[in-house]
Amino acid sequence: MPILNKDMVLCISLAARPSNIGTRFHNFLYDELGLNFIYKAFTTNDIEAAIGGVRALGIRGCSVSMPFKEAVIPLVDEIEPSAAAIESINTIVNDGGRLVASNTDYEAVAELLERHAVDPALPVLVRGSGGMGKAVVAAFRGAGFDDVTVVARNAEAGAQIAAKYGYRSTTTDPAPGHAVLVNVTPLGMAGADADVLSFSQEHVDAAQTVFDVVAYPAETPLIQAARSGGIPVITGAEVIALQAARQFERYTGVTPTLDQIRRASEFSRQ
Amino acid sequence: MPILNKDMVLCISLAARPSNIGTRFHNFLYDELGLNFIYKAFTTNDIEAAIGGVRALGIRGCSVSMPFKEAVIPLVDEIEPSAAAIESINTIVNDGGRLVASNTDYEAVAELLERHAVDPALPVLVRGSGGMGKAVVAAFRGAGFDDVTVVARNAEAGAQIAAKYGYRSTTTDPAPGHAVLVNVTPLGMAGADADVLSFSQEHVDAAQTVFDVVAYPAETPLIQAARSGGIPVITGAEVIALQAARQFERYTGVTPTLDQIRRASEFSRQ
Repeated sequence: MPILNKDMVLCISLAARPSNIGTRFHNFLYDELGLNFIYKAFTTNDIEAAIGGVRALGIRGCSVSMPFKEAVIPLVDEIEPSAAAIESINTIVNDGGRLVASNTDYEAVAELLERHAVDPALPVLVRGSGGMGKAVVAAFRGAGFDDVTVVARNAEAGAQIAAKYGYRSTTTDPAPGHAVLVNVTPLGMAGADADVLSFSQEHVDAAQTVFDVVAYPAETPLIQAARSGGIPVITGAEVIALQAARQFERYTGVTPTLDQIRRASEFSRQ
Repeated sequence: MPILNKDMVLCISLAARPSNIGTRFHNFLYDELGLNFIYKAFTTNDIEAAIGGVRALGIRGCSVSMPFKEAVIPLVDEIEPSAAAIESINTIVNDGGRLVASNTDYEAVAELLERHAVDPALPVLVRGSGGMGKAVVAAFRGAGFDDVTVVARNAEAGAQIAAKYGYRSTTTDPAPGHAVLVNVTPLGMAGADADVLSFSQEHVDAAQTVFDVVAYPAETPLIQAARSGGIPVITGAEVIALQAARQFERYTGVTPTLDQIRRASEFSRQ
């Protein structure tokens, strides 16, 4: 690390329960790229005063996590399309006192669909209707997909998300045959549901691309099943690394290489 | 430096024109003492929102410099006697959302008078009537000095400070003979007045203790004249190091040794 000095630019995150990942990811890249920046996670009981402090202290960037992604909407000065599309902010850039908000989860999903050359003509089955589900479904809409079905145990939430982006919803799994499977539930995540395969083996066998937003672990039962069948995958580790890289670029103006993002991501997960 | 992590405790300073000194002083000691803290200077155009941010973000400590020392009074929850005595705050400690304010300039001056065993019965001549003048004059009152004369070009400011603490004021230098001389003007400070001896040689010759709050350089013409005459001195470097050490203790709960303070102070001035 460079010797800490008054000119260091501070970026922060705000979350109910901060993890160490963002702090390690960003500081790794600051060091790697020789930037006079520091990054630290915070929590708060007063989101309005916290964002006021970001503005008043000239904190350059603020990553926003649960449960503040919607609460910060009235506190910023400008909302970019990525955040407006899902009414959810995860990134605030302070440009000389003007707070500009965006959503790099949306951007990362959209970019991964393009990078993995997923054909917008393919039928998509999305499981889940939470905050990340909204970002994912909206990104499919933004990428030009027309045939998307949202499966959600919560009928109302699933119907709302689907309707918002012009898709259909259901509470029970349709027959196998969707070319693109996307899991945005916690199934497969470390914890009680770690061993759960979030789609049936028959659904996996029929797929051409399997996308799981679960990042811890990245190798969920769904991703493992797809890899076993030789089916191309998009992992939650890719989403989290790419969205963090897009935040990094907005805060610093510097674009890290894919290799640097990979190493920062590995470091952040240690 | 330790690897930056989410649990680092942040302390900051607020000043119109931040210097690097506090940042280097505190971070040197954090490193030396193995504390998971970081310190960084900030400025602001909105002191109310900045202090609101200190509270909402759980920033542990906030050093306050010109021109915010009085503006923060209505923004804190508790004002300790050191700050109340001079209606000026330079230190805010955030105890779980409760902001407790003090003035370590006052404390440092009081402690130096005691450490250098300056006899409260001696007559004192203080030159200057600015913010630091107030801290110094109040500290002499707190230390039990009864015979203090404030010399100030600004008759009104000099009379106000003197009257507040029960002393006399004048706009012209009295005859030499005061045992304690104190300079709280910028005379002798790096810049236009660097070569100015802030008291006459005759005043210096008659003194038993010479105290200059100018810290840059610490070896002002006044301090040099006193040293040449073998007269004990108290320097601005001592004041600034001691007040910073008292801030450090309040923020961290750890008391650095005098040697650590000396080395941190040297590092901070490089």
